[in-house]
Amino acid sequence: MSKVITPQEEDYSKWYNDIVQEAGMAENSPVRGCMVIKPYGFAIWEKMRDALDARFKATGHQNASFPLLIPKSFLSKEADHVEGFAKECAVVTHYRLKNDPNGKGVIVDPDARLEEELIIRPTSETIIWSTYKNWIQSYRDLPLLINQWANVMRWEMRTRLFLRTAEFHWQEGHTAHATDREAIDETILMLNEYANFMENYMAVPVIKGVKTANERFAGAVDTYCVEALMQDGKALQMGTSHFLGQNFAKAFDVKFLSREGKEEYAWATSWGTSTRMMGGLIMTHSDNEGLVLPPRLAPIQVVIVPIINKNTKDRLSDIAKVVDKIKAEIPNVTVKYDDDDTRTSGFKFAEYELKGVPIRIAIGLRDLENNTCEISRRDTREKTNVSLDGIGQYITDLLEAIQTNLYQRALAHRTALTTKVDTWDEFVDVLNNKSGFIYAHWDGTSQTEEAIKEATKATIRCIPLNNPAEKGVCVFSGKESNQRVLFARAY
Amino acid sequence: MSKVITPQEEDYSKWYNDIVQEAGMAENSPVRGCMVIKPYGFAIWEKMRDALDARFKATGHQNASFPLLIPKSFLSKEADHVEGFAKECAVVTHYRLKNDPNGKGVIVDPDARLEEELIIRPTSETIIWSTYKNWIQSYRDLPLLINQWANVMRWEMRTRLFLRTAEFHWQEGHTAHATDREAIDETILMLNEYANFMENYMAVPVIKGVKTANERFAGAVDTYCVEALMQDGKALQMGTSHFLGQNFAKAFDVKFLSREGKEEYAWATSWGTSTRMMGGLIMTHSDNEGLVLPPRLAPIQVVIVPIINKNTKDRLSDIAKVVDKIKAEIPNVTVKYDDDDTRTSGFKFAEYELKGVPIRIAIGLRDLENNTCEISRRDTREKTNVSLDGIGQYITDLLEAIQTNLYQRALAHRTALTTKVDTWDEFVDVLNNKSGFIYAHWDGTSQTEEAIKEATKATIRCIPLNNPAEKGVCVFSGKESNQRVLFARAY
Repeated sequence: MSKVITPQEEDYSKWYNDIVQEAGMAENSPVRGCMVIKPYGFAIWEKMRDALDARFKATGHQNASFPLLIPKSFLSKEADHVEGFAKECAVVTHYRLKNDPNGKGVIVDPDARLEEELIIRPTSETIIWSTYKNWIQSYRDLPLLINQWANVMRWEMRTRLFLRTAEFHWQEGHTAHATDREAIDETILMLNEYANFMENYMAVPVIKGVKTANERFAGAVDTYCVEALMQDGKALQMGTSHFLGQNFAKAFDVKFLSREGKEEYAWATSWGTSTRMMGGLIMTHSDNEGLVLPPRLAPIQVVIVPIINKNTKDRLSDIAKVVDKIKAEIPNVTVKYDDDDTRTSGFKFAEYELKGVPIRIAIGLRDLENNTCEISRRDTREKTNVSLDGIGQYITDLLEAIQTNLYQRALAHRTALTTKVDTWDEFVDVLNNKSGFIYAHWDGTSQTEEAIKEATKATIRCIPLNNPAEKGVCVFSGKESNQRVLFARAY
Repeated sequence: MSKVITPQEEDYSKWYNDIVQEAGMAENSPVRGCMVIKPYGFAIWEKMRDALDARFKATGHQNASFPLLIPKSFLSKEADHVEGFAKECAVVTHYRLKNDPNGKGVIVDPDARLEEELIIRPTSETIIWSTYKNWIQSYRDLPLLINQWANVMRWEMRTRLFLRTAEFHWQEGHTAHATDREAIDETILMLNEYANFMENYMAVPVIKGVKTANERFAGAVDTYCVEALMQDGKALQMGTSHFLGQNFAKAFDVKFLSREGKEEYAWATSWGTSTRMMGGLIMTHSDNEGLVLPPRLAPIQVVIVPIINKNTKDRLSDIAKVVDKIKAEIPNVTVKYDDDDTRTSGFKFAEYELKGVPIRIAIGLRDLENNTCEISRRDTREKTNVSLDGIGQYITDLLEAIQTNLYQRALAHRTALTTKVDTWDEFVDVLNNKSGFIYAHWDGTSQTEEAIKEATKATIRCIPLNNPAEKGVCVFSGKESNQRVLFARAY
């Protein structure tokens, strides 16, 4: 067992922090709530970003860049938006420092006060729709399909690396459409792109659904989401896609001349995923030895370690030849050969397990004789002796198998931790003693939703898409209900 | 001549703004000094970013992410740095807004004042070196080779799109080394990477040199730079690479145990290029018809326009077949086929010239008969009828030829606008009547440098690397000089 990682069963939260830090993913910075994403963590984020970005482009979106700062008055233009977003955010009030006349250092120059304060964007609907006003005149300017990769800031009081930080990285798509139907289709399209990415790249199974009014994005008509279940039975919202109706178009007066020659307000969507997904990735697959990464997102997919000692150093060149042969057979796989002779192979094994490298290959003297190598897969920690004949295909297949296994394992875990409950006692019992997703009847009122949250800290994660109709009674109020909804305690 | 672009000879500055806006590169935002980078402009920036990023990774660097905000006190830790940087920057003083009790909208909550103000990073040496303190203990932790792609903010009073904006995008490399020699080598290595990128991708010839003490980065021991000459004879600094000595290591107490077991301060470099390069790209190649892009950075490398009219619409499918054939021959070239029938081919020709698409192919009915197409190159605006046999190779070769021609043309322009002068009268005369780069003797003092700047607005752009020694007398002071240095008026 790893010496640096607190076991999950001892303290899941501490285990998470240990993984993030010891695997070189991220750390806290001197600025409260802001993290430093370290090179290894950032390399994983780059792979996630590139995969998503390719899908955005394949579905017709273009990237652009909008200002970091938003005039304070913009936030108040959309009534719901300001209630939900304007409050906890970083406010720029001055634009100059000066030398402290009374001593060392610098002070804020009181003469450099901004006429209107600027807010570091917590999200960009307002600044973007104020821009769209000039970009949209006719139906021919629509649809406008734009995405931005950006840093945003929300002044969170309790922060956790990746899961909830004051500054975080994300992408925010902001589209404008001529009809409500087209905007809703876009909202669902991007929700599906998110789900496909999470399941096929992150190997994280997700449930697609729509949020209740209570949990809706501030300014949205409907908020769709993808929800995943972590190893500890708590839910994590992995991404959201909002149908914004004409709310922002009206707030920023974005009208267009329709094909029929009528002036109309544009229909909007916005959708986002963030570095929070990194937390979801960790809490879906990793174990007490460290990170476990799906091959498609691993910065190093295969690591090769030579097994030699001081007396057999002269055989290193023979091992290097085998390494070249393996590499040549898998040109599209990221391979690291670690022949650093200042570290033991035992140290290296632990290091690459900690970093979640999907496949480790060890090559020793006996392997040279036998034309073999030892292959260890990170997900199951199984070791196998494998012939070098056909090794390329073996590795390619194994990477696929690991990718699939991680998904299947996570899905099985979610299935095991998903419970249908019909009574309030059962609801509380499952939450406290089993945890996980709970499908239960709900009477459809915000009042009941809040009372349940108050009593148990469980929230309605979503009303799943294509939810089957089913008559029943609300677990809390006993009132009539037409469907079960998805409850969980959440991050 | 384009109807939307002011001719260069009429007003170069207005021409520049017209190009930036009309070609869909960028525009001003509602936030003073902050720009919106529009999709077409951002697509060019992405190509620049990806090409640079690949070179950074190929030379052993890794990306990471450091906080947007920097505690005010950090800026004062390196004495020169605070003088150069701490002053004109956005200051965050509060972290919450609240509803205005006296009316509509929101106000800054006076109870949410930060204990220590935070600065939006104007550059990240301080926050990064405060982090490196925990990352560097031993020579084995070195070299530390990290880059960050980020947005930064400097409160500029007079802004111009791309060239000087309050918020801009850039990359900043920050490396730590065990020896001064290694850090200096890194500084030069990255300078060369910049120069290679600018010449081979941007087709912008640059002069590599070192800045005088006056023009040095605040906190650097030596600042190296790459300087380019714009069409109007003014210089543009395209990128800088700094040898920082042990200044930041000392300011943030970053020590390591050397191979010899001695405690030493780490040696540092930092190097950066920004969206400013976009301005340099425009002002090197573009003309009165619009943008001219080097093929390697063009989001669309080839556009194909069908030449039909209402009576020949039925032939569109025949043209589409030819387009497919052409596309199949150039799988690595980005081709757009524009068969939008609501716009005339004349409109399209102007549009793609404005956007700087390197090659335009027109296909009409006669072409279908003759197995030809008409190829127009954007750089020279020459048109040629070309057989479809071997069209793929023709296009590939032509893209290469355009890339080379743009570089050669810019180099010829720079050569024509580079003058050796030996007297003050000549110096002033060339500046006022010819402009461009001037090689002149300088006595090596900051006093003379400032006096020349005061008198003419010309600055020493750099002391070129491998500058030949040459005895002479300073054009301004008449004192002895050992070499000519490079003067120009600059952006």
